[in-house]
Order: sequence, then structure tokens, then C-alpha cells
Amino acid sequence: MREFKKLTPYREALRLVLDDLKEITDVEEVSLDDALGRVLAENIVSPIDSPPFDRSAVDGYALRAEDTFQAREYRPVELKVIDEIVAGDESEARVGPGTAVKLMTGSKMPEGANAVLMQEMAEREGDVIRVLRPVAPGQNVAFAGEDVKRGEVLLRKGHVLRPQDLALLKSVGFRSVRVKRKPLVGIIVTGDELIEEFDEDAIRAGKILESNSVMLRGLVRQYFGEPVFYGVVPDDEERIRNAIETAKGECDIVLVTGGSAFGDKDFAHRFVKLLFHGTTIKPGRPIGYGERVFVMSGYPAAVFTQFHLYVKHALAKLVGARDYEVRVRARLAEKVPSQLGRHEFIKVRYEDGVARPIRKKGSGIISALVESNGYIEIPEDSEGYLEGETVEVSLY
Amino acid sequence: MREFKKLTPYREALRLVLDDLKEITDVEEVSLDDALGRVLAENIVSPIDSPPFDRSAVDGYALRAEDTFQAREYRPVELKVIDEIVAGDESEARVGPGTAVKLMTGSKMPEGANAVLMQEMAEREGDVIRVLRPVAPGQNVAFAGEDVKRGEVLLRKGHVLRPQDLALLKSVGFRSVRVKRKPLVGIIVTGDELIEEFDEDAIRAGKILESNSVMLRGLVRQYFGEPVFYGVVPDDEERIRNAIETAKGECDIVLVTGGSAFGDKDFAHRFVKLLFHGTTIKPGRPIGYGERVFVMSGYPAAVFTQFHLYVKHALAKLVGARDYEVRVRARLAEKVPSQLGRHEFIKVRYEDGVARPIRKKGSGIISALVESNGYIEIPEDSEGYLEGETVEVSLY
Repeated sequence: MREFKKLTPYREALRLVLDDLKEITDVEEVSLDDALGRVLAENIVSPIDSPPFDRSAVDGYALRAEDTFQAREYRPVELKVIDEIVAGDESEARVGPGTAVKLMTGSKMPEGANAVLMQEMAEREGDVIRVLRPVAPGQNVAFAGEDVKRGEVLLRKGHVLRPQDLALLKSVGFRSVRVKRKPLVGIIVTGDELIEEFDEDAIRAGKILESNSVMLRGLVRQYFGEPVFYGVVPDDEERIRNAIETAKGECDIVLVTGGSAFGDKDFAHRFVKLLFHGTTIKPGRPIGYGERVFVMSGYPAAVFTQFHLYVKHALAKLVGARDYEVRVRARLAEKVPSQLGRHEFIKVRYEDGVARPIRKKGSGIISALVESNGYIEIPEDSEGYLEGETVEVSLY
Repeated sequence: MREFKKLTPYREALRLVLDDLKEITDVEEVSLDDALGRVLAENIVSPIDSPPFDRSAVDGYALRAEDTFQAREYRPVELKVIDEIVAGDESEARVGPGTAVKLMTGSKMPEGANAVLMQEMAEREGDVIRVLRPVAPGQNVAFAGEDVKRGEVLLRKGHVLRPQDLALLKSVGFRSVRVKRKPLVGIIVTGDELIEEFDEDAIRAGKILESNSVMLRGLVRQYFGEPVFYGVVPDDEERIRNAIETAKGECDIVLVTGGSAFGDKDFAHRFVKLLFHGTTIKPGRPIGYGERVFVMSGYPAAVFTQFHLYVKHALAKLVGARDYEVRVRARLAEKVPSQLGRHEFIKVRYEDGVARPIRKKGSGIISALVESNGYIEIPEDSEGYLEGETVEVSLY
């Protein structure tokens, strides 16, 4: 049996992948409702000022600040309320000396007024208010363009759209937005040992229920992609070759699980000109990449690791996504030793500022993935971390 | 104009909401592929052991540990390789004294063997391996049930399903799973000042582009719900009453934006028997709840706050979701003063362990929501936090 001649360092392998892939240029125009979670294809520039006019930031009375400069609690200033407006309406009144206009948060400032007195600060009797303290010019006024200026970049290319972003876009007049096409991700699962349906006898005889495909479809959807499943292919040279060729022709990238090592039945890597094969990551060392094809491990936990360390970043590169990871600082609950020369992926449970390593080992151990909600990475040149050390956790 | 007679403390108001709502009992059986992000309706118990048999955790040689106890580098023990198996196949061979079987990670342990020697540790020549060091009984063996035991609870009711959870379910034989029905969330947006289409003249005249509906639809989808939009309703008593009645009849909960204050045109709260009206939260004080209806502010930033402080938790209660929030510890970049008696919702930008408050004010300021990626809460009995203090950030 052959072994990997050379283990490519993780960072170098990742760079080879990212340098090889090109950002998708296809753009789709989608309604704002369909844009949640999609990646902006271009900078969004505001076509208008927001607010489009000076407006009140509180419920209260629009007035001339200078009229209130002499106001004291023991010597209130009295102003006459000449009009009352509500949001969306507009007062025709002009605020002159000694007068005020009642308005609400969001109301357009009436002509002549330059400040707003908060309702709670005014004593009202009939159509007169008594002002007890001076109001500064501009106080409680939201000036035109204060939220957003016409021509200002609201959101940048590569931004992943959230509900509040959609609100901002809608509030300045957009009804649709241009986003990147979702990359098509071909998924091919290989292995004679795999079965699709529960069969107790088969399982006792050593067969394994295939679980990579459902996991990868979910992960691909989480990270901007559209999965295309090409089924479970037995360890047959010709059939694997055909599946890879078909998927390469139809998809932006292809994920093949199984066949990444050097067993007699590991065919997948023979049909792809790999830029590297075998890396320093653990678990998940046997991975190769070339010609837009990832040849991955067959073991679910290793596939999960390889997805997060390579494929996730590849998908982000394809759509140009920024800020697609949630990384948090945490105190390590116990020490995590690591072997020099390995880039380790350590599953952790993050809670209340503390990261607890999930100790279960073995690349087939799915329950450890389930217990964890994130991972830490330990690069090749580190012997690990001490208990209590601050580490960076990538949440998933 | 009337004012809130009493501001209900935030925690008390939230408790009133959560006590009033009942967990949905309707269950849907969905395929694993459709289960991503859904909430488990019941505990999931494993029907099998996983692994279902003792298997090798590495590529190597299955042997009897006792045969190696005398092995030393200067006096290797020689074993005869009597069979070679790959994952998914099974060896008929019985490992007796002086023999070994070559196998791969995941291969079923052959009869008679009780340990595996890692391939890298064996020197092979023809069908003989030389063992240089003793191997302990059980070494490199993944025992039956080590990952998952038959009858073990794999995932609990209320768990929000992730890709790795689907893999675990699939690996023990599930093809579908029972999840909670998505709560239907009626959305009614009210306000004469609102327009749907960009119209420069209308905007100059004080009209506002409606943006709450698209934001709420996105938020509802993020938090387990299915939005049902009842449109933008003008400030007309009869029409608002009808919309609320219709939505209450068709949905699990109803969100009404606008009309939560006491203006002449604030009708919504008159048609609902509210358990509270007006709370200590800021921004977003004017909120009422009763009869499964949230009467919310009209201002997008206040609506966003109210969603996160109330509606998100209400939706989690309806589906019984656990672990639906990502809360992280952060160092505060600058001090945040807060008024006693207010439960403040402070938008922050979290990055590299530091939370930077977004200073923009005003409940209409959507751009502050967009700049932020989370929030901190300051309860009524706190005067705020100091620069450098550790705070808990809820990410969104």
C-alpha cells in the first residue's frame, strides 16, 4: 500500500484551492424577499437621503430654540401651539416667534422651527405650552441624510444579506437586488460498503449507512451553494470516472467522498489532476484537490472537518462572500495538546465564554460533531494550548 | 394626548408573553433533507449501536495483543498476515497465535483479534510483519456502541437541526424525522404615511417607504416561523380591526406595526385586550401584547428591537426550541451609560472579542442596525457598563 509522499501544509493547500477557483460572475436579480442569505453582487448606493427631510426624533413640540433661551423653572416661557401634525402629514404652519407645532417622531419639521421640545418636558394647558428649560438649536431633530446620504455606499459587494439589510434597501426605494448566482456543488459519494436503507443483516455484515450526502447537502446550503447529488457510486473505476466527468461538466465545484486514500479501491484521485493530495490536517488528512474537484475522505467526521477547512472557504471565494464566519474568543476549559506538524481541527462546545473540547476520537465519530457547536484550529507549528488559554472558536 | 400609565418592566412583560403562549403540539414528519433548521418534536433514540460491531480505528493490522508483549526494537516479533480486508468487507479469517489480518479504518475486527497495530508502526516484508513494540489490548479498536449506543438519546426535543445532526440520524437508520409545525406569524403593517413604491414627490411630502414587512418576514423565517403578510393597512379603525381579526383566526401569533402609542390614529391597541402596554425597553418602549397579538412600534429600528426582545423568544416558546441564540462574551470598546429604570438594547459591532457600540440614535435609524451584528442588554437596575468591561453580546 502506498502512502502520501508529502503532506502539504494546510495553509498552503488552502491557498492552492483559493488561487485555482475564480469568483462567479453570474448575477441574479431577486426580489428583496428572496434575497435573505444571498450575497450582494455589487455595492449598493443610496439613491436618496434618509431621512429625506429634517424630521423630529421624538414626540413633542417644534419651536425656535432662541425663544427658549430665557426659560427657567421659576420663569417658564409660554408658546402658542398653532398646529398639530402626525407622522406622514405635513404642517402648512410657519413657526414664528412665540409659537410651536405639536408633532410626532418622524414628522417633517415645520418651516421656521429648528428644535423639538420633548413632550414630557412641556406643560400644556389648552393651546399653550410652558417651557421650563432652554432647548438647544437642533435638539431632537433628525436632519436630512443623517441616517443615509444620497450616493453613500449602504452595503458592499460580498455582504451576506440579513433582515435589517433588506429593510434598509426597501427604505431607500429598492424592491429587488442583484446577488451572485448560487454555485452548483456536485456531490458524489463512493463506497461499496455503503447502504441507503436500514438493513440489520447488512449492517451486521459490515455495511454502513451512508450519511455524507445529507450532511454535505446541508452544509452546502448553509454556505451559499446549491447541492446537486449524483448518488452513491460503487467502487467501480468506470462508474466513478463517469460520475466525476458528468458533475464537472454541470457544476462549479465537485465533492467526492471516499477514495481519497491509497487503497486498492480508492479510484477517485486517479481521474483528477490534483494540485495536492494529503495534507497536514487532522482529522481529515486524506484530501486532494484539482480541476474544481475535492477528493475527500469517506468518514463523516473527516468530511465535516474537510468541509469547514476547505470547501466553506472555496464557496465563499466563488461568491465573493465576506464575513461568513462567526469567530468568538473563549477560555479553554482544559489543555489540548497537539502534535507538531499537524494542523488540528478540535471540536468544542462553546458556552458562556468557555470552550470545552469534545474528546471523542476517530474519524467516524459523528456524535462528537453533534455535541460540539464549533471548532478551534491548532496550526502545525504549535504544540497545542494550555488550560485557561484564550482561543478563537469558529462557531457552526 | 395620553401617556403610558405604567411602564411594565421588561422581564415581567416577557414573562407575561411566554406564560400566555402555549407550545404548538402539531408535528410534521419531514425527510432529513427538509429538516435543516427545523425543531425536533421529540427525543431521538438510537435504534442501533454505532459502530454496530468492533472495528478498526486506523489502517493497520488486527492481531492478538498478547502476541506482541515481548516485542522490542532489538527483538521484533514476527506475525504472518493471513488476510487483507477493506472497509465494508469482512474477513472470514480467525486471528490465532502468530497471525494478523491487514485492515482499514472502519473494517470489522476479525475474530480472535483484540487490538490493531497502526500501519506506520509495522515493518512488512512479503506476508510477514515485524512488530517493534507491544500493543495494548483494545488499542486502536472502536468498540461496538462507542459512538452511539442502542437506546441512547441522540438528540433532544427542541434541538434545532444542523447538517451534522442529519448525518447522525441517517447513520443510525432514520430517513425522516418528526419536527414541530412552523408557527404561522401574521404581519400587519399600519400607517397612512407609508408607501410601497419609490415616489420622490410623495417622499418630499413626508411619506415613508414601508420597510417593516420585508424585515419581519426575514426575522420570522430566521426564527422558526412562516410569515403571512396581511399588507399595509391605512389608519382606518374598521380596516385595522378586520385585519387583526382575520390574522388572529389564521395565525399562531400576529405582529402589528404602528399604532402602539397613543396618537389619535393609533388604533391597533384598542382592539386587543392587552396584558401590558408600554414597557421599560429603549428603544421600543411602545409595545403591547395580548390575545396572541403584538402591537409594535412603527419605526423599523424599534420593531427590530422589539422582535429580538419579545417575538424571538415567543417563537422559540411556540416550537419549544432550545439553544436558539448565539451569545458571546466581549470586551466593551467604550463605556455605555444607561438610565436607571430602562431596559436598554444597545446595538454593537462584535469583532475579535471586542464589542463596539453603534452610536447612532433615533428609532428610525436603520443604518445602525446594518452596521451592527449583535446587541447587549442593560437591565433597569444598571447604570450601564464601563469601557473594558466584559459584556454578553447576542449575535444576529
